[in-house]
Amino acid sequence: MPLKLHWTSDVTPEKHGAEVVVAGWVWELRDLGRVKFLVVRDREGFVQVTLKAGKTPEHLLKMFGELNREDVVLVRGVVEASKIAKSGVEIFPSEITVLNKAKPLPLDIWSESPDLATRLRWRSVDLKRPRNLAIFSFASDVLKAIRGVLYEEKFVEVFTPKIIVTSTEGGAELFPVLYFERVAYLSQSPQLYKEQLTASLERVFEIGPAYRAEKHNTDFHLNEFISVDAEAAFMNYWDIMGLLEKIVHRLAEVAASAAERLRAVGISPLELPRSKIPRVEYGEAVDKLRQMGYSVSWGDDLTVEMQKSLMKLYGPVYFIVDFPAALRPFYTKRKEGELSESYDLIINGLEIASGATRIHRRDELEEEMRRRGLDPRLFESHLSVFDYGMPPHAGFGLGFNRLVTALLNLDNVRHATLYPRDRYRVEP
Amino acid sequence: MPLKLHWTSDVTPEKHGAEVVVAGWVWELRDLGRVKFLVVRDREGFVQVTLKAGKTPEHLLKMFGELNREDVVLVRGVVEASKIAKSGVEIFPSEITVLNKAKPLPLDIWSESPDLATRLRWRSVDLKRPRNLAIFSFASDVLKAIRGVLYEEKFVEVFTPKIIVTSTEGGAELFPVLYFERVAYLSQSPQLYKEQLTASLERVFEIGPAYRAEKHNTDFHLNEFISVDAEAAFMNYWDIMGLLEKIVHRLAEVAASAAERLRAVGISPLELPRSKIPRVEYGEAVDKLRQMGYSVSWGDDLTVEMQKSLMKLYGPVYFIVDFPAALRPFYTKRKEGELSESYDLIINGLEIASGATRIHRRDELEEEMRRRGLDPRLFESHLSVFDYGMPPHAGFGLGFNRLVTALLNLDNVRHATLYPRDRYRVEP
Repeated sequence: MPLKLHWTSDVTPEKHGAEVVVAGWVWELRDLGRVKFLVVRDREGFVQVTLKAGKTPEHLLKMFGELNREDVVLVRGVVEASKIAKSGVEIFPSEITVLNKAKPLPLDIWSESPDLATRLRWRSVDLKRPRNLAIFSFASDVLKAIRGVLYEEKFVEVFTPKIIVTSTEGGAELFPVLYFERVAYLSQSPQLYKEQLTASLERVFEIGPAYRAEKHNTDFHLNEFISVDAEAAFMNYWDIMGLLEKIVHRLAEVAASAAERLRAVGISPLELPRSKIPRVEYGEAVDKLRQMGYSVSWGDDLTVEMQKSLMKLYGPVYFIVDFPAALRPFYTKRKEGELSESYDLIINGLEIASGATRIHRRDELEEEMRRRGLDPRLFESHLSVFDYGMPPHAGFGLGFNRLVTALLNLDNVRHATLYPRDRYRVEP
Repeated sequence: MPLKLHWTSDVTPEKHGAEVVVAGWVWELRDLGRVKFLVVRDREGFVQVTLKAGKTPEHLLKMFGELNREDVVLVRGVVEASKIAKSGVEIFPSEITVLNKAKPLPLDIWSESPDLATRLRWRSVDLKRPRNLAIFSFASDVLKAIRGVLYEEKFVEVFTPKIIVTSTEGGAELFPVLYFERVAYLSQSPQLYKEQLTASLERVFEIGPAYRAEKHNTDFHLNEFISVDAEAAFMNYWDIMGLLEKIVHRLAEVAASAAERLRAVGISPLELPRSKIPRVEYGEAVDKLRQMGYSVSWGDDLTVEMQKSLMKLYGPVYFIVDFPAALRPFYTKRKEGELSESYDLIINGLEIASGATRIHRRDELEEEMRRRGLDPRLFESHLSVFDYGMPPHAGFGLGFNRLVTALLNLDNVRHATLYPRDRYRVEP
């Protein structure tokens, strides 16, 4: 039986009179003389432990004076509903055990929010901050919801190698790995593997790390991030947008359940739509932006600022569809003319997911490679699979850290990443 | 609406008279003149499409002659229950569309099983083999079940970096990565991160890649594998064994549901216990092995052969507990004397998971490092976290590819890995 039997959130007024055993960290100590308060924090919240002369065992009153913030404590006691205690409940302890002592912390987790660099320097300590506990509990719920939808739609979960020999898309910046006697690279995306897998497992998804050796250092880029990738045989980009729409609707539920806890730590989650998500043609988006005064031409990439502006017209979540083929990778299927069967999912102004119907014929694929200056011979291993019964297929890649950032209205993707890796940060 | 509306497994005798749209790959073609059979394969199974002169549109009878094995086809037709067809059902087509042509395959997926090297060389084609479809569908179900138990026990899912600056355990062989201007390494385990996270998120799990640059080339080792890691504050190794036991019991259900499909492709899944799993003390295991005639001494590692032999006494799934501390990594908590609060979970003779109560006091941790010749100063970033309220904690690391290998009685971990990475294999 674990040491800890109850979470702080289990200690509710309905438990009045019951014995509980909670464990966590000393959040606050208030000594009013004959009454002393100890607030214990755990992942799920706080609980007040009340020590009273005459009621509480003498040795606990004495021990109180030796407690420090962040000491690890186990508290056994009886629950009493209370009109005074913050959460309407308090514990009168029969036993308090100090499981580990804490030195004064190197940064303030109680009131001030130090600058991000200091927080990331002491990340494991910084994560004790209730705001961070709420963010990463929410992130886990988001993942669970995404997998839930994918399982319902008969996707199977796969793992593809992160050590590869060639660039997925050609020309991208990759991190070299010394793999025994040869040089290999860290994968930037499971794109080619997941496409190949549609010829066998048909509907696959993978959630795992992806690497970009780009030298950018912005608020919304990381060099190692978590990519949610899905790919399905016998579907096109409209089908995949339908799938993403289901995911967004499910996330609306997750965000609603978490809203109270998030607001308590100063986070206002984005209000997600539960109805049809607009599909905006790229051409229309460019026209609207020009009407708004942006100097943007057909064929240009849209910036975060532009995408934020489009929220006024389409709301916080929308798809942009039918991008110019030239803006998309070689494996994107063309529509008529210069368009492609592609889309981006924009949430809160950020590009969260991106996808397309893919090319499933080898000759078309080779042609698109050549158009982009890529040599098909370098992709022979991938291309050869297209000779043996490649189905029509479509999919998406979704940046998980960015998704959480967008859903929680955070201003930097590092807030949604436990231990971020960027241009200048490879520790802790 | 996706092109494909039904899986082959949806086409059952109960659908007699209904129209279906299946899609998949040409598995078999039999032309008996006035009757022609086309067997279509998809991820879920097979369905027979019957073409009959007089009943089937003329152009489809003609098209039949042009079909090749592994062509990608979409079949619309009416279901008829049948006493002759293998699965008791057949489709009479009104429409067959060839979505993509296939050249003759570079390896036989129908009858022969080519050698493993050839199969891995053409892995994406080899995966079309029904046996592989069953293995990897099962693997996905296993993952889902493991996560299900962890969610129930209030674990949150996390992602920790795979690019790190130092060895987790000291002395291990790591793959170097060129990370911009510096050398970093691929993580061999999220061990230190997950321990640190127990001080904030309390119960965490991570499922992701792990890397060992060891030069072994055996049937049960890979240089990149999927590690399932969990760690919990306020638990000890007995609690964690209880958690693993719950997982094994859940997997017994998964294996039972998949048994029919697996047997159909020649796989006999291991019979998993649904009752208490034996906890065998290391010392007892050594004694029993000596009685069996093995020359093994207290303090030795046990081999796969020995672990297989112990199945005769303890069944297919058992724990070995209380290993000599010297056999375990520095972060393992000592029990009395030379023992440690550690265990291995052995399934089908293979070490599948390993874990322990961890040390949660900095001074003990430093002492164990020095005992192993490790310099605590090199671990300062990790050790410092122990100054700020580290809770007692325990956890496990589980090799996912090996788990599937053991559960399915496979003779090589590569059979349970989509695209294995080993000493000599970094493609495809």
